[in-house]
Amino acid sequence: MKIDGIHYRSIWPGTDGRAVEIIDQTLLPHAFVTRSLDSLECAAEAIANMRVRGAPLIGATAAYGVALAMAEQPGDRQLRHALETLAATRPTAVNLRWALARMNDALQPLPESGRRAAAYALAQEICEEDVEINRKIGEHGLGVIRSVRAGKKDPDGPVRILTHCNAGWLATVDWGTALAPIYQAHDAGIAVHVWVDETRPRNQGASLTAWELKSHGVPHDVIVDNAGGHLMQHGLVDLCIVGTDRTAASGDVCNKIGTYLKALAAADNGVPFYVALPGPTIDWAVGDGIAEIPIEERNSTEVTHISGALDDGRSAEVRLTPEGVSARNFAFDVTPARLVTGLITERGVCAAGRDGLESLYPEHG
Amino acid sequence: MKIDGIHYRSIWPGTDGRAVEIIDQTLLPHAFVTRSLDSLECAAEAIANMRVRGAPLIGATAAYGVALAMAEQPGDRQLRHALETLAATRPTAVNLRWALARMNDALQPLPESGRRAAAYALAQEICEEDVEINRKIGEHGLGVIRSVRAGKKDPDGPVRILTHCNAGWLATVDWGTALAPIYQAHDAGIAVHVWVDETRPRNQGASLTAWELKSHGVPHDVIVDNAGGHLMQHGLVDLCIVGTDRTAASGDVCNKIGTYLKALAAADNGVPFYVALPGPTIDWAVGDGIAEIPIEERNSTEVTHISGALDDGRSAEVRLTPEGVSARNFAFDVTPARLVTGLITERGVCAAGRDGLESLYPEHG
Repeated sequence: MKIDGIHYRSIWPGTDGRAVEIIDQTLLPHAFVTRSLDSLECAAEAIANMRVRGAPLIGATAAYGVALAMAEQPGDRQLRHALETLAATRPTAVNLRWALARMNDALQPLPESGRRAAAYALAQEICEEDVEINRKIGEHGLGVIRSVRAGKKDPDGPVRILTHCNAGWLATVDWGTALAPIYQAHDAGIAVHVWVDETRPRNQGASLTAWELKSHGVPHDVIVDNAGGHLMQHGLVDLCIVGTDRTAASGDVCNKIGTYLKALAAADNGVPFYVALPGPTIDWAVGDGIAEIPIEERNSTEVTHISGALDDGRSAEVRLTPEGVSARNFAFDVTPARLVTGLITERGVCAAGRDGLESLYPEHG
Repeated sequence: MKIDGIHYRSIWPGTDGRAVEIIDQTLLPHAFVTRSLDSLECAAEAIANMRVRGAPLIGATAAYGVALAMAEQPGDRQLRHALETLAATRPTAVNLRWALARMNDALQPLPESGRRAAAYALAQEICEEDVEINRKIGEHGLGVIRSVRAGKKDPDGPVRILTHCNAGWLATVDWGTALAPIYQAHDAGIAVHVWVDETRPRNQGASLTAWELKSHGVPHDVIVDNAGGHLMQHGLVDLCIVGTDRTAASGDVCNKIGTYLKALAAADNGVPFYVALPGPTIDWAVGDGIAEIPIEERNSTEVTHISGALDDGRSAEVRLTPEGVSARNFAFDVTPARLVTGLITERGVCAAGRDGLESLYPEHG
């Protein structure tokens, strides 16, 4: 999508035929800095430290991480080392393992001399596929927005959409998942207004989603994560759309911590709650998402400390809690399928459950 | 309660017979500073800028604000001016209006010469009554904690209690409302562990509740507001206890924004959800809390900016959002009575509804 009128993707090949370029998302929204990843270690660091984040972009970066390893040394041992190093960066995202398995399947049978070129070609292919998937998610989600608008008492008023975390183009290669329908609606001239959950502790909503929407000109308001229930009680939300890091075959949805609370509020107030997801984030092996999906626990300093911009534009970290206070930091939660109105995929919209998913992905039935 | 072994209240008369002393809660948890309020304007400023906060403490401070006005000039016009000035400081808290009405009822009939002494005496009486009310809330809530412990699979493990915002002694004159049962359980040797919601946007949980519990030695962990649902899904919360700024006669509970979301999660996971409240916060005139209770909307900079301590101990404010982003800031929400397991009052525990409340407060029946 566009930044100051210039089209960007969140990851793209460098001009030297080896390095890959990313936007350092830890510096957003206060500074827009691109970063060149020129080694496996660099790619792994970028994923682990969330310079790139969002399931699809993590997968794409991991694919390029394997390519960077092959550029250095294309042997079996190096390939195994690359897969292990990258797999260890983030425990929850299924795209990461999916992309690594795909790279391995393609590269393993090849002679060493063919691996480098094949790895870059496949990493690029994974990126292009992601863009196309998200464009289609946007198309199908646009249908949901149109139908919500048609059911509004004031169809000329904006469709007010609440989203959590950042499932925008910064979380994918382009378009985004949850935000793709919003961008397409806005571009099609449908009035939309987005309630942006700030999404503590890492504030991807307040920083990244707000930055994306502002850059693209989509009307929005940032709110604290606590506010969504109140807004829904008072009829100020027409629709929720969120992304997901991992969707169980049962339709249970693992997404950023706090998603479950918004789904409860949506159900309690009759607000449609949709999850936008690319096929690769479906984990067909998982039935009960709550029982089976391991939830990453991250460093508690993400809760006790927060970074932002000082008055003079410099960035600073401040401590929010009393010194030495204990904190816990669970990164995701699981929203049970019963609270999800529908799943928006690149193949269409379906009910959140095995039947719905199998109707769109019969090859997994 | 105690700070470093010394017993404090949150408001107390100064030694000069005129000023009243408070703890400046905007500086907590990074600095412990007391502040002398020596005029009506000072008292109003302290309430408006949340140097004192929490419904009961706001009421007590407003009472002293009237006394300070009477110390200056005890005429009818000044009394009216004091009542209007103080009533305008915060729109939602019912204690504020309750305390002001009580001061007015007592002072209005008096000759001017008797008003100053009567005002200080009544302000002190309001404080003592609040301490006694909270001590009793603690006793009745302790019964709830004991019975939750008795029903636990591991009765020797800590009773894990989630709370939102700060309804501790800093929000009252002493003891607190939601935290009073926790202090009494801890002091009685019952193992408790408190999940402390940070409570964006003003972070009263991460700053004040964490500071209180740490000062008193009660085990706890700070979590982001998004985390409670996940904890409840995984059986890590035995009980929720929150405070309230205003309880409708129907049992609907107005409390800090985000309370409703935790009540939804508690109901969805079979976790008992209790609200601790002093009788004066019941608004007998309100039936439907969601439709009838006006919700204060505060400055959006509370959402876009946050204060904390830098590494060197200095305090600083950082901007979290991109420059110029729009935000909205709703301060409270209303939890419908159907989601509330029980109300813990100074007169006992009752069901959240008119029948329950009237059984404890028959004078309002």
